[in-house]
Amino acid sequence: MTSWVKWPGGHPRFGYGADYNPDQWDREVWQEDVALMQKAGVTIVSLGIFMWARVEPENGRFDFSPYDELMDLLHAHGIAVCLATGTASPPPWLVRAHPEVLPVDAAGSVLEFGARQSWCPSSRVFMGYATRLARRIAEHYRDHPALAAWHVSNEYGCHNAHCFCPTSANEFRRWLTQRYGTVDELNRAWGTDFWSQRYASFDQVEPPRLAPTFGNPTQALDFARFSSDELLAQYVAEREVLREVTPGVPVTTNFMVGPNTKWMDYWRWGPEQDLVSNDHYLDESSDEPEVVLAFSADLTRGCARGEPWMLMEQSTSAVNWGRVNTPKVPGQLWRNSLAAVARGADSISYFQWRASAAGAEKFHSAMVPHAGPDSRVFREVCQEGARLAGLTPLLGQRSDNRVAVLFDYQSWWASEQDAHPRQDWRYRDAVLAWYEPLWRSNVGVDVVGPDADLGRYDLVVVPGLYLVTDATATAIADAAERGANVVVTSFSGIVDEDDRVRLGGYPGAFRDLVGVRSEEFVPLRPGQSVTLSDGSTVSSWAEDLTVVDDATTVVLAYASSPGGLLDGKPAVTVRPAGVGRAWYVSADLAADTQRSLLAQVLSEAGIGPVAPWTGALELVRRGDHVIAINHSDGEAEVEVAGHELLTDTPVGPRLVVPAWQTAVVRIG
Amino acid sequence: MTSWVKWPGGHPRFGYGADYNPDQWDREVWQEDVALMQKAGVTIVSLGIFMWARVEPENGRFDFSPYDELMDLLHAHGIAVCLATGTASPPPWLVRAHPEVLPVDAAGSVLEFGARQSWCPSSRVFMGYATRLARRIAEHYRDHPALAAWHVSNEYGCHNAHCFCPTSANEFRRWLTQRYGTVDELNRAWGTDFWSQRYASFDQVEPPRLAPTFGNPTQALDFARFSSDELLAQYVAEREVLREVTPGVPVTTNFMVGPNTKWMDYWRWGPEQDLVSNDHYLDESSDEPEVVLAFSADLTRGCARGEPWMLMEQSTSAVNWGRVNTPKVPGQLWRNSLAAVARGADSISYFQWRASAAGAEKFHSAMVPHAGPDSRVFREVCQEGARLAGLTPLLGQRSDNRVAVLFDYQSWWASEQDAHPRQDWRYRDAVLAWYEPLWRSNVGVDVVGPDADLGRYDLVVVPGLYLVTDATATAIADAAERGANVVVTSFSGIVDEDDRVRLGGYPGAFRDLVGVRSEEFVPLRPGQSVTLSDGSTVSSWAEDLTVVDDATTVVLAYASSPGGLLDGKPAVTVRPAGVGRAWYVSADLAADTQRSLLAQVLSEAGIGPVAPWTGALELVRRGDHVIAINHSDGEAEVEVAGHELLTDTPVGPRLVVPAWQTAVVRIG
Amino acid sequence: MTSWVKWPGGHPRFGYGADYNPDQWDREVWQEDVALMQKAGVTIVSLGIFMWARVEPENGRFDFSPYDELMDLLHAHGIAVCLATGTASPPPWLVRAHPEVLPVDAAGSVLEFGARQSWCPSSRVFMGYATRLARRIAEHYRDHPALAAWHVSNEYGCHNAHCFCPTSANEFRRWLTQRYGTVDELNRAWGTDFWSQRYASFDQVEPPRLAPTFGNPTQALDFARFSSDELLAQYVAEREVLREVTPGVPVTTNFMVGPNTKWMDYWRWGPEQDLVSNDHYLDESSDEPEVVLAFSADLTRGCARGEPWMLMEQSTSAVNWGRVNTPKVPGQLWRNSLAAVARGADSISYFQWRASAAGAEKFHSAMVPHAGPDSRVFREVCQEGARLAGLTPLLGQRSDNRVAVLFDYQSWWASEQDAHPRQDWRYRDAVLAWYEPLWRSNVGVDVVGPDADLGRYDLVVVPGLYLVTDATATAIADAAERGANVVVTSFSGIVDEDDRVRLGGYPGAFRDLVGVRSEEFVPLRPGQSVTLSDGSTVSSWAEDLTVVDDATTVVLAYASSPGGLLDGKPAVTVRPAGVGRAWYVSADLAADTQRSLLAQVLSEAGIGPVAPWTGALELVRRGDHVIAINHSDGEAEVEVAGHELLTDTPVGPRLVVPAWQTAVVRIG
Repeated sequence: MTSWVKWPGGHPRFGYGADYNPDQWDREVWQEDVALMQKAGVTIVSLGIFMWARVEPENGRFDFSPYDELMDLLHAHGIAVCLATGTASPPPWLVRAHPEVLPVDAAGSVLEFGARQSWCPSSRVFMGYATRLARRIAEHYRDHPALAAWHVSNEYGCHNAHCFCPTSANEFRRWLTQRYGTVDELNRAWGTDFWSQRYASFDQVEPPRLAPTFGNPTQALDFARFSSDELLAQYVAEREVLREVTPGVPVTTNFMVGPNTKWMDYWRWGPEQDLVSNDHYLDESSDEPEVVLAFSADLTRGCARGEPWMLMEQSTSAVNWGRVNTPKVPGQLWRNSLAAVARGADSISYFQWRASAAGAEKFHSAMVPHAGPDSRVFREVCQEGARLAGLTPLLGQRSDNRVAVLFDYQSWWASEQDAHPRQDWRYRDAVLAWYEPLWRSNVGVDVVGPDADLGRYDLVVVPGLYLVTDATATAIADAAERGANVVVTSFSGIVDEDDRVRLGGYPGAFRDLVGVRSEEFVPLRPGQSVTLSDGSTVSSWAEDLTVVDDATTVVLAYASSPGGLLDGKPAVTVRPAGVGRAWYVSADLAADTQRSLLAQVLSEAGIGPVAPWTGALELVRRGDHVIAINHSDGEAEVEVAGHELLTDTPVGPRLVVPAWQTAVVRIG
Repeated sequence: MTSWVKWPGGHPRFGYGADYNPDQWDREVWQEDVALMQKAGVTIVSLGIFMWARVEPENGRFDFSPYDELMDLLHAHGIAVCLATGTASPPPWLVRAHPEVLPVDAAGSVLEFGARQSWCPSSRVFMGYATRLARRIAEHYRDHPALAAWHVSNEYGCHNAHCFCPTSANEFRRWLTQRYGTVDELNRAWGTDFWSQRYASFDQVEPPRLAPTFGNPTQALDFARFSSDELLAQYVAEREVLREVTPGVPVTTNFMVGPNTKWMDYWRWGPEQDLVSNDHYLDESSDEPEVVLAFSADLTRGCARGEPWMLMEQSTSAVNWGRVNTPKVPGQLWRNSLAAVARGADSISYFQWRASAAGAEKFHSAMVPHAGPDSRVFREVCQEGARLAGLTPLLGQRSDNRVAVLFDYQSWWASEQDAHPRQDWRYRDAVLAWYEPLWRSNVGVDVVGPDADLGRYDLVVVPGLYLVTDATATAIADAAERGANVVVTSFSGIVDEDDRVRLGGYPGAFRDLVGVRSEEFVPLRPGQSVTLSDGSTVSSWAEDLTVVDDATTVVLAYASSPGGLLDGKPAVTVRPAGVGRAWYVSADLAADTQRSLLAQVLSEAGIGPVAPWTGALELVRRGDHVIAINHSDGEAEVEVAGHELLTDTPVGPRLVVPAWQTAVVRIG
Repeated sequence: MTSWVKWPGGHPRFGYGADYNPDQWDREVWQEDVALMQKAGVTIVSLGIFMWARVEPENGRFDFSPYDELMDLLHAHGIAVCLATGTASPPPWLVRAHPEVLPVDAAGSVLEFGARQSWCPSSRVFMGYATRLARRIAEHYRDHPALAAWHVSNEYGCHNAHCFCPTSANEFRRWLTQRYGTVDELNRAWGTDFWSQRYASFDQVEPPRLAPTFGNPTQALDFARFSSDELLAQYVAEREVLREVTPGVPVTTNFMVGPNTKWMDYWRWGPEQDLVSNDHYLDESSDEPEVVLAFSADLTRGCARGEPWMLMEQSTSAVNWGRVNTPKVPGQLWRNSLAAVARGADSISYFQWRASAAGAEKFHSAMVPHAGPDSRVFREVCQEGARLAGLTPLLGQRSDNRVAVLFDYQSWWASEQDAHPRQDWRYRDAVLAWYEPLWRSNVGVDVVGPDADLGRYDLVVVPGLYLVTDATATAIADAAERGANVVVTSFSGIVDEDDRVRLGGYPGAFRDLVGVRSEEFVPLRPGQSVTLSDGSTVSSWAEDLTVVDDATTVVLAYASSPGGLLDGKPAVTVRPAGVGRAWYVSADLAADTQRSLLAQVLSEAGIGPVAPWTGALELVRRGDHVIAINHSDGEAEVEVAGHELLTDTPVGPRLVVPAWQTAVVRIG
């Protein structure tokens, strides 16, 4: 296990704990806290995330005394600390002394202090104060035995991903100068001849603020890239200070990886972490939040290049920021945690230890709820701590999956701009449309980035990859040539990295690979539909497709369409490509059709599930363990033999998992 | 009758009239106006509400001449005047000379002149000009015989309840300093340790402007309190001038009391009025606007501490500001007015006398519509004037109800903040859910504030009282101890006056009183539901409840719920408390269940309707009168004997009220 | 044919072409372009619409060299040029040197450069630079043989119709001073006595910026008038330069006439054009976009006072700016174009020649799509070019219709303001409700403005003409007196040109003409409805109507209504007026009732269709030609004899038009 937390004492444990915000509570509560933590099996807490205004109550005056006491107290109770640099939110004095630190929205409104993250990602003023604080904290606690890891800032970009202030504008121009070298190259990339936007110098460029109508799409794309880079630069600046002062202590910042967090290109952030950590909250907008949870976990592992990672935050029960915040039902807490462990998490933490009495997050659940430790939630928390302690054999184990789903932030940014074929096209949906049936098939999936090595995969799914570089397109084609089945879906390969259309017919970059050519997108209006040759219905997206390679086979055709535009034309095709095959799916398929097509592809690729099973069971393989989670109210059966860790009993050749229960089997 | 209008001649009459805006019309129209007023039975008009730009056309130059003529004209026709101070909307010269008077919204946009109320509630500049005008008018008309009362400003806070300008910020800091004394106390109350918001001085605090995400909830709550206080201070400043110049003339400003006007804490405003007046418009968003009308009237009477009040504005037919503005149907005008009279109104007025030909309100109905006096509306107006003249015996009579519904503005402000269990929880709905079946049962209700004396009530309903002070919680518990039935509903007692959660389990402040403890809120998503032991369905809100007092009885239990979370747990409970009983209702009940529960509670409390009746009849008791309003197309019957005032005939022992008709019976 | 393009060589051709934006492409593409243009039958292109940043890359430095080459190249291939003045969008250097040129929205936010039309309509700075550029271009190309017409700017007001900056405020005050002379007259017109808005001088007036609530409606109306005038003044300024430098070359700017473009009063713009040109895109919000297309074409012809006009832009297939951008189906391209030709278009052009690879409009279809010339779209483009070449006999021919539908921009502006009887009342719907059944009846319609000569019409439809001047009201009454059937529909005649209500009962200006009087509007809420005497249902709007003239006949009455308000009252009436008749329709009618009423009116007026037909056929008469378009999948038949131009064959006495096909028959 590389770059894992620096456990006091040195022997690795399962991380288990929470954000710990003791500054909200009187000192006598702290004693109860550590006693309850021990009861719950807590091994690590994140301390001090919002402590800036406490530890630096005025410019340059530092006071760590309460935290000294807390660090000692936690250590005395055997609890390691992932210590925050405290820079997630600036203190009042900073924004009053430097109001230019406050972010500005696209319409020019200043975003006031009083929430959190009220700072401009490009602010060098903020960076100066933040790195000064990080240095002081690191110097102060460098030798403290409780210090296990650094937690830099918090959820970068959750609310301040984009700022349109003059400072941001200056840095954007610097960034553009570095990217393009000459303004002529910018003009080429952005297509500024349209709408008379040709710039004579970088000085004339501004961020994509509120404008009379659609702005330049490549300007918006570059601004998204720039913004992610600026936030990352803030992280790197703090990390460099920490590496200098405490070279042996691993550094992380908690990502918010998942299909709903759009603005940080975590593929670029991952390599800058000593260990990857992630926050995941159940997606209330989803019918099956378990699918999204699994996707996010697989994506997090991807950002960690397969290394174990920390689930830094999740909720024990309801969140507070949704429209309707429903509690988790009994047992769900553990099922959610185990799904993350199954996908590489070596640490499970919550926001937060004790539910706040005041402030914006007081109705967010916690390990200790408002009702106190005599509560269902705290009892489940204790149960989870005990269970995790029994899973130590899983620590450090890796996955070895044969299926890759390609996921790219820059394509996401570019594909959801306005003035597109349909404004409600969502990258998230295009990706989950393929991830979900894979999840349901209990096929292990790696979610990989556009620069991933695809060599080890037998199936590579490329859903809705609107923007693709030549290099990535080549890598995908090479994967097929070397023997993989590659599935490219509609609205892929359309533009290059400058958001410039690849001419000659869609899917542009993949046209030769898949051997078809699309003349037009056919997004369907509410009420419109297209029928396929198998009788199924397409309701959102189709394309006007022609086979352009003799070897291409039509798997499904369009049977009827508005105005007959598509009748008889190909809808799904496959073309032999080297040793492999390249599939093209030009339409959003009905669920049954999708499942049947996936079965066909998996069969061609020779890929089966983690283990044969019956009933509604989620099965995941991690190293030499099979994890089983029953998401139904009926029992389920899986063919597996070995040693079940939660009950510490041998099992096999069949294991019955009761309704809603779980199992972790060391095989063999 | 205390503090009622100073009727010219001295003998009290039923107030009947309108806002009168003669400056919109040529002088010849004035003559027609007073003739038509006499025909309609008008006794009082509000004059000069928007006269500022007329009477002070430039800074410091005053010209009252047209109003002199109008005052004389009205007086000559026996019409009293509720004279405006004219300060509802500033004239153009004021905002151009002092642009800092214009309000600023949370995003920093200045709200331009050109509508109405374009002034900042904290502006001392505005206050200076407004009080100067009030003084000049008072001095000018102090001895005019038509002067019956003062009408200060108009609908304070209708459009300018909150201002975020630098002046407001300064005054907010002053207000906070007065409230908290030290910034440490503010930090404690606001819970600023969360999100690093700890202030080092009051200077660092700003209003809750647009921020990157959820702001501090107690900051928002205090800003609401401050804003209501600032508007009230504007009123008090004018009132003080008027009291000084015309000590015998009562002063009022028209409230907009009702379940849709949120931002003025009228419980604090009421005691500052010599007589309470209110504007009420039918609630187009309501299926049963009569219920909302009745609630608003009961609440207005509450603000007037039981004294008679003035219905200062309603509409004769359609309003102009709704989405679809439908006329009132024949007879509705009278039924609406009588419902207000039944609940303590001694005056019924309209906005406005004559429908405007121009401006933003030209499509608002009036006593004289665009079609002129030969119209259905004007005929109904004349009929109402004649009827009111026959109701003089009702003047000054009070109600004597045994049921109190507790209604609190500060709880409203706090409970509808964001980041709560469900964002669409509405205080209005929680309150009307209990007021409506009481109204339908013809049980007389007082709507009372959090500081009310609850001693006289046999039933106290406490719906959704999220924020409650210790004092109010104690008063409610005392009411039960002394013998009342107290009904506490879900999401009550959660926080103290600082919006800090009362820990240990919900309903916090009422946990001991009701003898149950709730661990978690269970708001239900669309499509989710919970079933109760009586087979009924809960669709919006439930709680994870446990009985914590042996004396508590379960009235209804949860039968089935998502994930089984609530199965078998209590839903509605009752606990003996001293001589009385304390009920807890943890869920939003289906209508039938609600009605049946209310019947049980009323029966326990020994409370019956105003009089036995059949058919769809609204029955209200005012003093020794019973008012009956038939809201249906069938006749209805009530057991009552006495003298019917509208027909001037004896009735009894039964009175039949024909479809859509009304009756006013002096009992005995 | 007057004022038509100056064809090189002098012999008129059907215009056929596109916006041509070669600056987006390398020089080698230009050669392919002209070759493909010849293949497609292109005769004219609009060149240089967004060339400003290219031809004036810095202030005062002009470089036309690439355009010199292009003009020569196009001319060498026989293609005429409608040359742009290039002023549609300013270059970056202009807005950076003069940031005050950027528009400002009602809330005070500056609209940044980076989209298009980022200039304030009142900016004299912009006008100075724009006219300088126009002069330089005119002087440079005055003698070029390819120059056929001038295309000034582009789609004026598409995104910058209103600006609220200080410059706009100054010019608005100047405009108001000119309109009203004295501020007292402004006060009278605007009704400023309401809400204390009386201005002491023009200096106190500002544009209708964001305000606390509803602003003054006449202020908003005047600001709309002013804004349209300011944009027109920008056009006129450029046109004057062009007329001076190239007196023989006709000047146009492309309108966006149709029921969705609200803010330019094209009745005032039409007379300023040497030839009228229009952009029309299929209306994705419409179930029957062909109806809207026909309406827009008839309205464009109205703006051109019956003269032939240019369809300057439409799309070959999908647009890019809708919510869901569906391609046109096979054959639709031609059917749409022919519908415009049938209504007076002598030129059909597209946006744009070649689909962009980059920029905000890259997903807008073009004559040459991304897929290239080997595509369905380009094949249909070539087919259309060939067909238009065969329609030369139609050039210059005019329509001779007997039905007028009155359409007024100022009434539109006034009628859709807030604080009206129903906020969702839409002028567009009121007009199309009558245009659509006329279209379906194949009755030729002129869409005319409020100042039109109505003398030639036998039927004048006046739908929802909320605002009407005395002069227009008189002209409409005169039309009836002289023998026409006049149909006035609900919410007509309500206010004068100052948006001041015409008192005494609705429909105000038309009360005497139609002989009825309405006391109240009865807009219906969702769920409410009114039944008519024919059993049909009214769901949106009714009125409380009384007959006030003995000669008025009730055609349809209200049968039942909420609260019985309308029961038995008139709904549709007719009154003899001189030699003609005046109908009043007080409600929105169900489709069948509407159709049957229209049939009755047409019969009274003695008006029949273009020709007898069966099946779903659109028939239009232009000069001595009948154009037939089959919009259905079944064949249709029309009684017509003559020579069919597309097939160059004689036809008659019956012509069968196959499914989806078209015909153009020269009669006789």
